[in-house]
Amino acid sequence: MDKFMKKAVELAANNVRDGGEPYGAVIVKDGEIVAEGINTLHKEYDISGHAELVAMRKLQKEIQSNDLTGYVMYASGAPCEMCQVAMYNSGIKEVYFGQSLDEVVEAGFSEDVTTQEEIDQFVQSMKQIPLSGDVENPIQLYAKRENK
Amino acid sequence: MDKFMKKAVELAANNVRDGGEPYGAVIVKDGEIVAEGINTLHKEYDISGHAELVAMRKLQKEIQSNDLTGYVMYASGAPCEMCQVAMYNSGIKEVYFGQSLDEVVEAGFSEDVTTQEEIDQFVQSMKQIPLSGDVENPIQLYAKRENK
Repeated sequence: MDKFMKKAVELAANNVRDGGEPYGAVIVKDGEIVAEGINTLHKEYDISGHAELVAMRKLQKEIQSNDLTGYVMYASGAPCEMCQVAMYNSGIKEVYFGQSLDEVVEAGFSEDVTTQEEIDQFVQSMKQIPLSGDVENPIQLYAKRENK
Repeated sequence: MDKFMKKAVELAANNVRDGGEPYGAVIVKDGEIVAEGINTLHKEYDISGHAELVAMRKLQKEIQSNDLTGYVMYASGAPCEMCQVAMYNSGIKEVYFGQSLDEVVEAGFSEDVTTQEEIDQFVQSMKQIPLSGDVENPIQLYAKRENK
C-alpha cells in the first residue's frame, strides 16, 4: 500500500504496543515525511492529543508558521471533527485516512465514536450571555485595532 | 453581567491589547474559576491555541485527568467546532459564550468564521486508502489488547 499511509499505520500499531490508542499520522511535503504524530492520550493529559493535531503542532512549531498550505495529511484512522477543523484552518487541503469509523465500531468501540447528532445536541445546549454593563467589547476593540 | 463571563470577556479584551485575537475563556467548578485561557495564536505556533482549548489543557494537566465532567466553560466568543468537540469529549456539559459569530461577521471578520458548509466540503474531500498487504491492523490490535 501507499508508503506514507503504511508509515501512519505502523505508528498506530506501535502506539498500541506502547499502551496507547490505535492512531498515527504523518504529514508529507514534496514526497517527504516532515512530521509524525501519535495519539498521546495515554501519556499526556490533553484531550486534543490526537495523532493529526500532535503532528500538526510539531510541524507548526518547527516551521514557525500555522500555515500548512501544500502539506498532505496521512492519518491511520478517519480524523475526528476536532482534527478536521484544525486541518482546515491550517490550510491542509489533501487528507488521506486508512481505517474508517465503521471499522472502529465493528471492533467494538462504538462508544469512542462521537456522532454528529451528539455534537449537534451539545452545541444546541450552549447558552449565550450577551455582553452588558461595564465591559469592553473585545471584538469591537479588535476591529478598531485592525483598522489602524 | 455574570461575573465569570465578565472575566472571560476581560481576558479577551486584554488579549487584544497584547496583540492577540479577541477571545478568552474561564473554567469554573463549585463557584470558583479553576482555569483561564486566552487565544494564543499571536504568540505560539499551534493552530489549536484557542482560549477554550488552552484553558482545558492547563486544567487537565493540573488535575492530571482529561475528565472535566462537572466543570463549566465560559467563553467570551462562540466556540468553534474544534473546541466544541474537545469540550464534548472532555465531559463538559455546560457552556456559556458571550459574543456570537454574527458579531464577528458584523465587525468585518467574516473570513475568520468557518462555515459548516466549508467543513462538510473539506470532509467530503478526504480519501480513504484502505489497509492492504503486509501491515498490522492497529484497531484490531487494540481490540485484542483490550480483551485481554
